[in-house]
Amino acid sequence: MDTIPTTAATLDDTWEVAGLRFRSRLIVGTGRYKDLEETGRAIDASGAEIVTVAVRRVNLGDPAAPMLQDFVDPKRYTYLPNTAGCFTAQDAVRTLRLAREAGGWNLVKLEVLGPPPFLYPDMRATFEALEALLKDGFQVMVYCSDDPIAAKRLEEMGAVAVMPLGAPIGSGLGIQNPVMIRAIIENAKVPVLVDAGVGTASDAALAMELGCDAVLMNSAIAHAREPVRMARAMKAAVEAGRHAFLAGRMPRQYAADPSSPLHAGVIGRN
Amino acid sequence: MDTIPTTAATLDDTWEVAGLRFRSRLIVGTGRYKDLEETGRAIDASGAEIVTVAVRRVNLGDPAAPMLQDFVDPKRYTYLPNTAGCFTAQDAVRTLRLAREAGGWNLVKLEVLGPPPFLYPDMRATFEALEALLKDGFQVMVYCSDDPIAAKRLEEMGAVAVMPLGAPIGSGLGIQNPVMIRAIIENAKVPVLVDAGVGTASDAALAMELGCDAVLMNSAIAHAREPVRMARAMKAAVEAGRHAFLAGRMPRQYAADPSSPLHAGVIGRN
Amino acid sequence: MDTIPTTAATLDDTWEVAGLRFRSRLIVGTGRYKDLEETGRAIDASGAEIVTVAVRRVNLGDPAAPMLQDFVDPKRYTYLPNTAGCFTAQDAVRTLRLAREAGGWNLVKLEVLGPPPFLYPDMRATFEALEALLKDGFQVMVYCSDDPIAAKRLEEMGAVAVMPLGAPIGSGLGIQNPVMIRAIIENAKVPVLVDAGVGTASDAALAMELGCDAVLMNSAIAHAREPVRMARAMKAAVEAGRHAFLAGRMPRQYAADPSSPLHAGVIGRN
Amino acid sequence: MDTIPTTAATLDDTWEVAGLRFRSRLIVGTGRYKDLEETGRAIDASGAEIVTVAVRRVNLGDPAAPMLQDFVDPKRYTYLPNTAGCFTAQDAVRTLRLAREAGGWNLVKLEVLGPPPFLYPDMRATFEALEALLKDGFQVMVYCSDDPIAAKRLEEMGAVAVMPLGAPIGSGLGIQNPVMIRAIIENAKVPVLVDAGVGTASDAALAMELGCDAVLMNSAIAHAREPVRMARAMKAAVEAGRHAFLAGRMPRQYAADPSSPLHAGVIGRN
Repeated sequence: MDTIPTTAATLDDTWEVAGLRFRSRLIVGTGRYKDLEETGRAIDASGAEIVTVAVRRVNLGDPAAPMLQDFVDPKRYTYLPNTAGCFTAQDAVRTLRLAREAGGWNLVKLEVLGPPPFLYPDMRATFEALEALLKDGFQVMVYCSDDPIAAKRLEEMGAVAVMPLGAPIGSGLGIQNPVMIRAIIENAKVPVLVDAGVGTASDAALAMELGCDAVLMNSAIAHAREPVRMARAMKAAVEAGRHAFLAGRMPRQYAADPSSPLHAGVIGRN
Repeated sequence: MDTIPTTAATLDDTWEVAGLRFRSRLIVGTGRYKDLEETGRAIDASGAEIVTVAVRRVNLGDPAAPMLQDFVDPKRYTYLPNTAGCFTAQDAVRTLRLAREAGGWNLVKLEVLGPPPFLYPDMRATFEALEALLKDGFQVMVYCSDDPIAAKRLEEMGAVAVMPLGAPIGSGLGIQNPVMIRAIIENAKVPVLVDAGVGTASDAALAMELGCDAVLMNSAIAHAREPVRMARAMKAAVEAGRHAFLAGRMPRQYAADPSSPLHAGVIGRN
Repeated sequence: MDTIPTTAATLDDTWEVAGLRFRSRLIVGTGRYKDLEETGRAIDASGAEIVTVAVRRVNLGDPAAPMLQDFVDPKRYTYLPNTAGCFTAQDAVRTLRLAREAGGWNLVKLEVLGPPPFLYPDMRATFEALEALLKDGFQVMVYCSDDPIAAKRLEEMGAVAVMPLGAPIGSGLGIQNPVMIRAIIENAKVPVLVDAGVGTASDAALAMELGCDAVLMNSAIAHAREPVRMARAMKAAVEAGRHAFLAGRMPRQYAADPSSPLHAGVIGRN
Repeated sequence: MDTIPTTAATLDDTWEVAGLRFRSRLIVGTGRYKDLEETGRAIDASGAEIVTVAVRRVNLGDPAAPMLQDFVDPKRYTYLPNTAGCFTAQDAVRTLRLAREAGGWNLVKLEVLGPPPFLYPDMRATFEALEALLKDGFQVMVYCSDDPIAAKRLEEMGAVAVMPLGAPIGSGLGIQNPVMIRAIIENAKVPVLVDAGVGTASDAALAMELGCDAVLMNSAIAHAREPVRMARAMKAAVEAGRHAFLAGRMPRQYAADPSSPLHAGVIGRN
C-alpha cells in the first residue's frame, strides 16, 4: 500500500528557508531514541532533509563515544542546531556560538523555554536571544508561542522562519489552537512551521492542512512503540496534509449542523 | 516530497474480505466527478483496488454513451456494486439482483438510506435487505449506523464486512463519534470500514488510527477543488493512519491536562 | 452567587410529556449514591421533578430495610420506573408490569441494553419491548441510540418521548455526536431528552443548547466528589443551556477560522 | 425552572481582587447593545457586580446625551474602566489617566490589542503599559494571551489579576486552548479570569470548570438574539461551572476510549 507516483507537480512543491530549498516538509529531532542506530533508521524512514540537533545534549565531537554523524550523515541531511536545554537568552546565544565554532553551522533553531512543568516558550528571552543572534549574523528559525503578534515581530526582526507550538513539547496532545496557527500563517511572509505537540499521524496531517510550510517533531516518532514505522507514518501524513491543503477540501455541510443556531419555528417544532 | 520506500513489512500488511486480499485500504466511489475522464484519473491517483459503483446511476451498458468501464478498467479494479439511491429493502435487493445478472457481481455493498435531509442508514430496512441478499447467495458489505450492537448483529447474520458511517453522507464533517467506531472495531470479527463522512486527509488518517481495516469515500475526493490531487492526499493519509495505528502512538501527557480533575488545594491555590 | 430572579417568561417555559407538565428540565436517577440520605439531598438540590427508579434494584416494598420513598417523597416527585438491568425485551416488559402492579405507575422509561462492556442500547429488543408495552397501555419514554430514523420510528409507534444517548452509560464523556442529537431534535414531534453521557455541567448546558427538551443523568451527580453540590451545578447548567437556546447565540466568526478553506492566493501567500 | 436555594456554602464562595470581595463570578461589558436601556436590563439579569466601561467609547460626562450611569448605577456596580480601542501602550496609559481624573477610578482593566483582523493582545505593549500604570499607582487587571510565562510575569510585575483570552475578541468561538488556560490557573497566585471568546452558556461553564476565578464577556450577551435572556443564561452557566469545579467531576471512562492506544492482540483481532 505504498509508493505515491512522483509527478512533476509534486516535484515543484518545494519550500525555501534561508536560501535553501527542500522537498520534504517534515523536520525531525535526533534525540529520545533507544540508541543512535534506531535514530538513524527512523530518520531515514521519515524522508526528512533537515534534522535538529540539541547541541548541548548530543555528542558531536568525542570520537571515542558513538557519534550522531555516524548514523545521520551530515552530507545527506541539513543539521539544524537547536538550543534545547537552554532556559535563558544568554545560554541560548552561547550555545549557538559554540556550535558555529565547532561545526560552522549558521542556520540555527532558537528555542528558549520556561521552567518545568510547562516548558512553554519564554517569549521575552526569545526576543532577546534573537536580537543577539541576528547581530552575530546567524540565520534563525524561532520556536514561539501561538501569538500572531509575537510571530510577526519575530519576522520583522529578521527571523528566517517562525515555529509556533502545536501543543507543549513532549505532550503529544495534537494541535491545540488551530485558529491561532492559521492566523499566524495568514499573516506571515516567512515560512511557518508547526513545532511540538504532534502525537500521531492525523495531527501532522491537520497541521499541514492549516497551510503551514512544514512540521517539526521528535517524541511522536521516538516515543512510538515502533519508531521506524511511525516515521513512515509521519512522512505520509505530512504529504497527505500538504496535498489536501493544495487540493482544497470539500465544504462541510449538513442539515443538522449544530454549529449554526437552531431557529425555533423555522424547523417546525416549538 | 513523495515516494515511500516499499518494504516487505508493508507488502505484508494486507486485508481480506470475502476471500479476496487487498493491499490498498482506500475504497473510492465513482460518482460526483465532473466527467468520467476525471473519475478515472482520480481513482488512479488514489491507489484504490476496489471502487464502488452505483448500479442505478452509472451507465454500465449503453455503448452509445460514455461508459465507466472505459475509464476505470474492470480488470484492474474490483467493482463493488452498491445500492445508492435505494430507499427500501425491496429496491436494494432488486437493484443488486439486476447487477448480478448484468455483470456477474456477487460481492456487493448494501446501503439503504432514510429520507433526506438526513440520509442516515435505515437499519431496519438494511437488516431486511441483508437477509434476502444472503439467501440469494450474495456476499454483502453493509453500510450501517455507528451502533456496535447492530454491527455485531450484521456480522452474525453473515455480512462479510460492516461499514459504519463516520458522519452523514456528503457532509465532510469528519469522524463524529470515534468512541463508537472504536467499540465496533474492538467487537468485530469481520473487517470494519469507515464509510462516509471523511472531509479531508486528516479525517482519513484518524479513521485508520482507530484501527479500522479500510476507509471508503467519494465526495471528499470528487468535490475537492482538485480531485486528482486530493485522491493522492487520501492515498497517503490512509497509509499514514494505518502505519500510525500499527506503530502505536506515544502517550498523551501534560502537567496541565484539563481532562483530569483539578483538585483545589493539591495545586496550591485557594 | 445564586438566585436567578424568577420571571413570568421563565415560569411559562415548561415542557410536557404524557399529559404532564414540568418546569424542571433535569431528570435524575436515584441509584449509585453512598446512601439514601445522600440520594435525597442530591435530588432536592437538583430541582428535579421527575426521578428514575430502577425497579429491579431499588427497595420499594420491604419496610424493614431503608426505603427510597422515605428519602425521595413520591408525592413531591414523579417516579419514573425504568428497566435498568434488563438485557432482553421480555425482562423489560415483565419488570414494568410488576412495577405497575406494585405501584400503579403507567408512565415508564424503557431501556434495553446490550452486553458489557459497551452497554449500548439494543434497538431491536427496544422496538420489541416498546410494542408489547404500548399494547399493554403503558406510556413509554424510550432510551435509544442517536439514530434519527430509529428515533422517528419509536415516535411513530407511540413512544411519548425519545431519549438518545449523549455517550455510553456511566462514561461521563459528554455529548459525542451533537450532529445526530440535533437531527433527532429537528425531526421529532415528541419531546427529546439527552439521556446518559453527561459528565459535568458544561455537558448538560451543551445538551440543552442543541435544543432538547430535557436531560437525564445519574452518575455525573452520584459519582462526583460532592454529589449535592454537583446536583446544584447541574440544575444551573440545564437552566443556563435552556436560556441560551431560547436566547439565540451570537454567530461564530473569525478572520482566521480554520474550518473554512484557506484559499491560496486570496490571502496573499503562496 | 429557576431559583437555586442560596446556602451558606455558596455565600462563602467569594473571590477577591485588589482588596474587594465579590460573589458574582461574571463580569460583563457595557457596549455593543442596541441602546442603554437594554444595556441596563441585561446587566441586571447577569447578576454581575463588576462592569467594564470602554472609557474612550462611552459617554460618562455629557449630560445632554444618554449616560451609562443612568442605566447602570455606579453605586450598585463596580465600574472597571478599560482601554478598548487603544492600540499602543501610550494610548492605554493616557486613557486610564484621564479616566482616573474624571471618575476617580483606580482599579482598571488594561488591554492593548494588535491590529485587525486578529485583534490579539499585543503583549509587548501590554507589559510596557502595565509598568507605567503600576508606577502611577493603578491597580491593574490585565488582558493577555494564553501564555503561562507571560501571565506569570504580569503577576510578578504587580498585576492584581490576569485575564487570558479564551478566543479572539468578538469571535464567540469558545475556549480554544483549555490546556494553557489550565496551566495559567495552576501557576497563578492572583485571580485568573477568562476574558473574550465565550459564545454561549456551555463555553462559560467550561471556563469555570477549568478552575478560573471569573469570566468576562460582552458580545456573547449583547449580540445574542435576546440579550437579556442570554444574560440570565450566563449567570446560571457561571454558577454551574463554579459548582461543578468545586464538586469535582466524575472520572471519564469507557471500554472503547479512542484516546488510549488500541493494542493489537490485546483486543483479539488482527
